[in-house]
Amino acid sequence: MTKKLILDLDTGVDDALAISYALGSPEVELIGITGTYGNVLLEQGVRNALAITDLLGHPEVRVYKGLPHASTADGFEVLEVSKFIHGNNGIGDVDIPDSDRDAETEPAVDFIIDAVKTYGKDLVYVPTGPMTNIAAAIRKAPEIRDEIGGIVLMGGALTVCGNVNCCVEANISQDPDAADYLFRSGAPATMVGLDVTLQTLLTYEETRRWRELGTKAGAFLADMTDFYIKAYETTSPHLGGCGLHDPLAVGVAVDPTLVTTLPMNMQVDVEGPTRGRTIGDNTRLNDPVKTMQVAVGVDVPRFLDEFMTRITGLAESAA
Amino acid sequence: MTKKLILDLDTGVDDALAISYALGSPEVELIGITGTYGNVLLEQGVRNALAITDLLGHPEVRVYKGLPHASTADGFEVLEVSKFIHGNNGIGDVDIPDSDRDAETEPAVDFIIDAVKTYGKDLVYVPTGPMTNIAAAIRKAPEIRDEIGGIVLMGGALTVCGNVNCCVEANISQDPDAADYLFRSGAPATMVGLDVTLQTLLTYEETRRWRELGTKAGAFLADMTDFYIKAYETTSPHLGGCGLHDPLAVGVAVDPTLVTTLPMNMQVDVEGPTRGRTIGDNTRLNDPVKTMQVAVGVDVPRFLDEFMTRITGLAESAA
Repeated sequence: MTKKLILDLDTGVDDALAISYALGSPEVELIGITGTYGNVLLEQGVRNALAITDLLGHPEVRVYKGLPHASTADGFEVLEVSKFIHGNNGIGDVDIPDSDRDAETEPAVDFIIDAVKTYGKDLVYVPTGPMTNIAAAIRKAPEIRDEIGGIVLMGGALTVCGNVNCCVEANISQDPDAADYLFRSGAPATMVGLDVTLQTLLTYEETRRWRELGTKAGAFLADMTDFYIKAYETTSPHLGGCGLHDPLAVGVAVDPTLVTTLPMNMQVDVEGPTRGRTIGDNTRLNDPVKTMQVAVGVDVPRFLDEFMTRITGLAESAA
Repeated sequence: MTKKLILDLDTGVDDALAISYALGSPEVELIGITGTYGNVLLEQGVRNALAITDLLGHPEVRVYKGLPHASTADGFEVLEVSKFIHGNNGIGDVDIPDSDRDAETEPAVDFIIDAVKTYGKDLVYVPTGPMTNIAAAIRKAPEIRDEIGGIVLMGGALTVCGNVNCCVEANISQDPDAADYLFRSGAPATMVGLDVTLQTLLTYEETRRWRELGTKAGAFLADMTDFYIKAYETTSPHLGGCGLHDPLAVGVAVDPTLVTTLPMNMQVDVEGPTRGRTIGDNTRLNDPVKTMQVAVGVDVPRFLDEFMTRITGLAESAA
């Protein structure tokens, strides 16, 4: 059976690239997008996901509304730095038409649980924002942690500094308690964090290739990503490109051999000045059962080649 | 040529086991011990190193006095927790005779530089306390970072929590600036941190074998290590033994294949609440040249077997 994918997105720029990567991968079927908050508000992310799947020629992809904020918070506001990196609308301030479609009425958490019941080990869930939805799903139906094929999350930083502060990565920072719950839950999760995503960089050279396709999809991807690369020139001038965070998580979901991983039992600091840090759980260091894999190495040329082949092909055929 | 080893020790309990491991390893020649501070004051550590090499039948091993405190501090006092773990005298409050010998008159920093000049790539330097001496040596003679065979340090924690606080390991905490200087110096260093040393555990079962040898050396090693295991029962009851921190660094110096490592460019946080944390240097993440190796996996059964074979053999023959 074709591997089934759910993307859980706070649809900003690299989330849009993650959608493109999934839709350009014949090995997987994107059975749904669940919306979360982070780069943008929940509503904006859901709007973007609907509009982007339309633009990319895949209006069959259903979009589900997730939880609008962490269970430990009263609400959520987009950080100024997120607007700087992703634009006020989340997709580089590029205008694309609203979809005629609406989000599904079924809540994201229920959709996730139902999908695990339907597809079991054939389902991979890829959260690229906070872990709020998946933590809520496991709390509601704890058995899914044993039934799901896998979780490949973009988030965290184990061997490198974070991007919120030196300890903390942005996705995990939005809901450290949910991430800690997931990490300790026993669910089979692969952490694709800044350790690897800051090695997979895109430049204007690649976006030019999309623009030269002469398609709406190509122009959109190029303009949106150029905004993102430009922001990186300010926030991370040493990198020489933008990090392909969310697409790498999709890449690993499609083909786990793109990264090398450490088998580990992980935790998230939920107290003190390091709240939000992802780190090994010393109390389970010598437990022979390791529930997570942490990506610490990545085949950069191969991933970039897959990334460009898949997304360029999609943008060419999408019209 | 036989590999030459310098051990840089704050001779506490596991430092004494590190000396034993080195003296029990025919592949290496222990050409000197340089003294540092940490588990004990400099003077006490030097006294212990002289007394232990005598007791183990190796009075030919010269001992050199290093720097008594971090260059950023006015002095050094032993922490209460160090006394609890290593005893007031550093070696589990076990009485052994003072050596007739004195420390050499040549300062440790000069001895290290001279040894690099003499042995070059055949020399491996193993610091198991703060990095104060090696940082001072590199500052004084920067060329040694390219000339030395290698540095295998016990210290730091990359993928697990620290033991001073969740971010910081004890050796690095004593002089974060020196460690950061070493890590950024370009010297070829292997970090053997809590990531692996908390996996290599010793219990009363092994110390009993030393006691049953009926030798003074065996009785000393058993009594001293039992004190240490007992302290671990209080400080780290979940482990079920004591961490073989310093001996594992010696083990890796003798046989690097005992651990699996990540090639990395490392830094030490020197500011803020995480001062003393060892972490990847994001600004050098994509530099193809990696100057350090960080041990993230260890062949526990093989190391414990080597550890017991070498030290038991030494303790049996030492009388």
